[in-house]
Amino acid sequence: MAIVNGYKQNENEKKLDILNLPELEEKAKQIIPTGGFGYIVGGSEDEWTLRANRQAFTHKQIVPRALSNIEKPELDTNVFGLPLKTPIMMAPTAAQGLAHVEGEKDTARGVAAAGGLMAQSTYSSTSISDTSAAGNGAPQFFQLYMSKDWTFNESLLDEAKKAGVKGIILTVDATVDGYREADIINNFQFPIPMANLTKFSEGDGKGKGIAEIYASAAQKIGPDDVKRIADYTDLPVIVKGIESPEDALYAIGAGAAGVYVSNHGGRQLNGGPASFDVLEDVAKAVNGRVPIIFDSGVRRGSDVFKALASGADLVALGRPAIYGLALGGAQGVQSVFEHLGDELKIIMQLAGTKTIADVKKTNLLNIKY
Amino acid sequence: MAIVNGYKQNENEKKLDILNLPELEEKAKQIIPTGGFGYIVGGSEDEWTLRANRQAFTHKQIVPRALSNIEKPELDTNVFGLPLKTPIMMAPTAAQGLAHVEGEKDTARGVAAAGGLMAQSTYSSTSISDTSAAGNGAPQFFQLYMSKDWTFNESLLDEAKKAGVKGIILTVDATVDGYREADIINNFQFPIPMANLTKFSEGDGKGKGIAEIYASAAQKIGPDDVKRIADYTDLPVIVKGIESPEDALYAIGAGAAGVYVSNHGGRQLNGGPASFDVLEDVAKAVNGRVPIIFDSGVRRGSDVFKALASGADLVALGRPAIYGLALGGAQGVQSVFEHLGDELKIIMQLAGTKTIADVKKTNLLNIKY
Amino acid sequence: MAIVNGYKQNENEKKLDILNLPELEEKAKQIIPTGGFGYIVGGSEDEWTLRANRQAFTHKQIVPRALSNIEKPELDTNVFGLPLKTPIMMAPTAAQGLAHVEGEKDTARGVAAAGGLMAQSTYSSTSISDTSAAGNGAPQFFQLYMSKDWTFNESLLDEAKKAGVKGIILTVDATVDGYREADIINNFQFPIPMANLTKFSEGDGKGKGIAEIYASAAQKIGPDDVKRIADYTDLPVIVKGIESPEDALYAIGAGAAGVYVSNHGGRQLNGGPASFDVLEDVAKAVNGRVPIIFDSGVRRGSDVFKALASGADLVALGRPAIYGLALGGAQGVQSVFEHLGDELKIIMQLAGTKTIADVKKTNLLNIKY
Amino acid sequence: MAIVNGYKQNENEKKLDILNLPELEEKAKQIIPTGGFGYIVGGSEDEWTLRANRQAFTHKQIVPRALSNIEKPELDTNVFGLPLKTPIMMAPTAAQGLAHVEGEKDTARGVAAAGGLMAQSTYSSTSISDTSAAGNGAPQFFQLYMSKDWTFNESLLDEAKKAGVKGIILTVDATVDGYREADIINNFQFPIPMANLTKFSEGDGKGKGIAEIYASAAQKIGPDDVKRIADYTDLPVIVKGIESPEDALYAIGAGAAGVYVSNHGGRQLNGGPASFDVLEDVAKAVNGRVPIIFDSGVRRGSDVFKALASGADLVALGRPAIYGLALGGAQGVQSVFEHLGDELKIIMQLAGTKTIADVKKTNLLNIKY
Repeated sequence: MAIVNGYKQNENEKKLDILNLPELEEKAKQIIPTGGFGYIVGGSEDEWTLRANRQAFTHKQIVPRALSNIEKPELDTNVFGLPLKTPIMMAPTAAQGLAHVEGEKDTARGVAAAGGLMAQSTYSSTSISDTSAAGNGAPQFFQLYMSKDWTFNESLLDEAKKAGVKGIILTVDATVDGYREADIINNFQFPIPMANLTKFSEGDGKGKGIAEIYASAAQKIGPDDVKRIADYTDLPVIVKGIESPEDALYAIGAGAAGVYVSNHGGRQLNGGPASFDVLEDVAKAVNGRVPIIFDSGVRRGSDVFKALASGADLVALGRPAIYGLALGGAQGVQSVFEHLGDELKIIMQLAGTKTIADVKKTNLLNIKY
Repeated sequence: MAIVNGYKQNENEKKLDILNLPELEEKAKQIIPTGGFGYIVGGSEDEWTLRANRQAFTHKQIVPRALSNIEKPELDTNVFGLPLKTPIMMAPTAAQGLAHVEGEKDTARGVAAAGGLMAQSTYSSTSISDTSAAGNGAPQFFQLYMSKDWTFNESLLDEAKKAGVKGIILTVDATVDGYREADIINNFQFPIPMANLTKFSEGDGKGKGIAEIYASAAQKIGPDDVKRIADYTDLPVIVKGIESPEDALYAIGAGAAGVYVSNHGGRQLNGGPASFDVLEDVAKAVNGRVPIIFDSGVRRGSDVFKALASGADLVALGRPAIYGLALGGAQGVQSVFEHLGDELKIIMQLAGTKTIADVKKTNLLNIKY
Repeated sequence: MAIVNGYKQNENEKKLDILNLPELEEKAKQIIPTGGFGYIVGGSEDEWTLRANRQAFTHKQIVPRALSNIEKPELDTNVFGLPLKTPIMMAPTAAQGLAHVEGEKDTARGVAAAGGLMAQSTYSSTSISDTSAAGNGAPQFFQLYMSKDWTFNESLLDEAKKAGVKGIILTVDATVDGYREADIINNFQFPIPMANLTKFSEGDGKGKGIAEIYASAAQKIGPDDVKRIADYTDLPVIVKGIESPEDALYAIGAGAAGVYVSNHGGRQLNGGPASFDVLEDVAKAVNGRVPIIFDSGVRRGSDVFKALASGADLVALGRPAIYGLALGGAQGVQSVFEHLGDELKIIMQLAGTKTIADVKKTNLLNIKY
Repeated sequence: MAIVNGYKQNENEKKLDILNLPELEEKAKQIIPTGGFGYIVGGSEDEWTLRANRQAFTHKQIVPRALSNIEKPELDTNVFGLPLKTPIMMAPTAAQGLAHVEGEKDTARGVAAAGGLMAQSTYSSTSISDTSAAGNGAPQFFQLYMSKDWTFNESLLDEAKKAGVKGIILTVDATVDGYREADIINNFQFPIPMANLTKFSEGDGKGKGIAEIYASAAQKIGPDDVKRIADYTDLPVIVKGIESPEDALYAIGAGAAGVYVSNHGGRQLNGGPASFDVLEDVAKAVNGRVPIIFDSGVRRGSDVFKALASGADLVALGRPAIYGLALGGAQGVQSVFEHLGDELKIIMQLAGTKTIADVKKTNLLNIKY
């Protein structure tokens, strides 16, 4: 255990013997300090949307396919021109030093080992360049929490570009922090600096609460910002936090090269729809113009399958990967990705789909439970 | 603690550190005597409608809005020609002396400090003039439980008018008291006089059960009464207890200057619909002819948002404000209003709505949970 | 306590202080011997239909009515040409000696005192003439479990006619006993003779299980039986156990003078619909040709209202009346009827309905919970 | 108790006094060793589909039928040209030695005594010929888990044919083993050899986990395999694991003589539909071309009735029969079949259906719970 500012950081480095992703939460709770765990696990208000994110997957069913004559399903895919070994990617998740002393570096290592796409958060515990270097050349995206200070945004984008990231994820559903009660109950303040903030006058985030962090971020984010970032970086900009067909088209009109369907894991607008409930309609509106990333509530191979079959091109994991990070470092993250991939392969075989492209062409049933 | 007729009245005067409104119920239960608390918290029959009032908010979802380019949402609104700092108002609630020694006076002070609209109940523990004086010039409505004795009604209306109230809320859903089991179990009798009843032969309510109080009230209330009160006072009359499009139009036809959608917090007709479930249809029928007030079940910023987006112009709070009163007096009430307003502002920002007018133009999703 | 064949019969005779009908079940359980209580309370198989009977009432809502200008609602009604003080009647319920030493005689007394209609069961603990005599001239129906032995049927019908009953209820949903597990678990055998069976070779039921009792009853019951009973008695025959529009019309075609919508309180065909769920469609098909009696699951004034508004002319009570009988004899039964009537009157007032005829014209809402 | 490889096999041989099938699970859990019980009871992933299998039966209701003039319902039926005393058959279930030392031999004896159809699994603990001989000449089917090794398949089919089986059930929903967590938790390995595997180089299954067993099975199964097996055996081939109209027609097109609607008791594709939810649509598509067998979730007489009324010709039992086997050997299995048949007969009488053909013509209600 490393102790930083009184906060105990895990240092585990090992493969995990995973039964399923949901059980990781309780195990992680045992080893992540209360405040950090509350920050990771919590949703906003009474967490209705967080719970709905899970329940929504029961609204559709996967039809087992008979006599499909396939075997050995494969997870390989190619999205945003990037060849990937799995459609499961890492969601941009803040402050991973809360879970592990190596933070995002170990996550990048683990995701790379699993063949997935890594996304760094602006509020990472490790710097863009360090995380990037840890990724062994595997593709990474950088997620931007837009600052009110455009100079700061440019610095981040410069560093991201220099580090070779393949895309920018612009988060637009967090122009203010959702009302997360766990953080209030725990009076949680980040004990560990956010590496990308260190060089700026705002300070590095250490000793601040999430509301203070977000206070430096821009509340006003509009279509011009998408275009400005795209023009500045010449990288694909994926707009994260889309939950409606209208906004998806609006974002594409503004220059988005990808649509990221997410409700921030139920951490932002509570009372909003479950992310999976809106995915299909968003995908119909997008109609193949740009790739779609999906997250919020994914825990099972069948969830991944249902998301892909409902229009997602990539499915992102947040909390479970962080739990894997806490429990096993880079190898833990890798274990999480591989376990979920294994569950997905079973579903693919039983649903008669050999490739991710086959999965995407699958029609789900719609019996409401 | 003040002790009146053996009943302990709270005397707290302090700001409250509120996590959320639902948690106030348990805290208030600790300090309000059993009979009084049972009277406040209880619904009728098996409380199905009371529970449905909460569940109904899950029937619609707020779509997070991306790239909306707004910041700093504002709660100001103007309803019934009254400029208000918040669309959250105080529901007319009886016998607030059960919660606090200052009763409605402190509520009026707290609501005024929060910039909201205060509504006094006929069955207030403090008199119309006292409550009015406590309100620091902020707007107030007076709610009328119509007596069988028209002279008495005129006296109340005279006093209300003299006190400068801006409107009369005529309650029409309580022509008999709902079957509230908590009051029966507790054999509850009002320990504290109802100030507005004191000068009349009916007595002041002290030592009576709710059924006896209601017994002096009129059972027969019809459209002529609306007109009669409007003519007598020359004030806008808002009809409270509307739960259908038909009744809304009927009331407007009878001269109502406002429609108050409410099922009395589940205290009257159990087996009736959840109030939020009928709001949208009522609002469509009203179609902007008069303002709409809504209550029953509101506990969260997202609830307020959903009610406004479904057609309400003002959203009223009952029990949570009374709990705030018990726990902190005027400042407690203010804390409740401000906390709910803060939650609302977060939702407004995330839903891309800068003003209450924007909220009212928002379309909600309709995924049944 | 009277003890008959080792079975303790209650002898209470007192008014009951009733909070609500559901709470009577637990109180009755304390004083009715296990086997008898299990027989009364139990449903068939896993009791899904029994539970659905209650839940179904939440499928419709009563709209509170504003400005309806009514007061003092009245329960009087006239069905089958019988003037009644309440639309709540006694369901024909077997073996009431299990609950009380006076059995059906006390039930008849209590129902008469409450102004309701009494229905005797073939399998009564007291004889047709005794129960009839106890009823103080108030109207009674006789329910027939048709025997395979037509001579026996004639004897019962002769006695019923002689006793002055106003109608015959022919039960058709129990041509075999439902699979009631409580009776099997308790190895329940009737400890008390069934008075109407005593004079017949089949024996009096004492020491037999329900399956043996039913074994003497006819399995084959068809339209000819309705006609035969009607012709033989020249009394209105009400067919009990109808759960579909088709069967309602079929029964009327066969000569039924009334349709009794019931699933036997969930004691017969488990996996069948909740009785309230089918009432409206049955009533639409019947379309006023004959009166409709409804039972199964009624516990609240709002339930009675909903049943009347969905097409019932009379609403029958089974278990709760038996619990009242056990707890207070004739006065207990009267208390149950009066309490439910009181709850109904509150609902009627709040729903703006002065008479039972008004209730029957009411449209319910249909929001599925 | 026989002990084989450290595994205690039950040796009970007795009639069971059955209250209902669900209660057998707990009783069996007491006497079947943990690993074996986990293998039998478990479903895949989080067992959503397993639970939905039960809940789905509440989606339809059986209308009680009045005045139907029938008595003494009969369970006899004739499917695949086989006269049977009951429409309830034995599902092909692996490794029954886990439950009882006599394994499939006792099951065959019990099913024969009950007049039902026996289906042997490829992964039986007893050999095709032994199980067949135990069946007293009653009809049996043989279920094939197709091996990658066609020679092995031919050997099994040869032996099955020689043993006189009347049909081949080709399982197509298990081309890989579902993700069953109970087996992983218990680190379950089959302690008892699978008799049909013994003579082959793959080994007899003993000491292997289910994944290893399935590893020798074919993943690729297509329409040609149906035809090949039909041609080779000249027996009717029933395709098991169909959950959609499309696959049913596809299988029939490929030469299937029967369609077996099943989701393997929730053990394979979790996240797939409840089996009963898809039965009616499959049956409409099949439209009488071939018989339909149904399983997954059947526990009650009403379930069997609903399945038959939704299009099934035979309804198969898995786990409950195995529990009966553990608790009572051949007589236990017989008791299970007879008990369920008795429940079915009650439902048939109350639903006015004298024959299985009548049941199949019944329309169910469709009120969603």
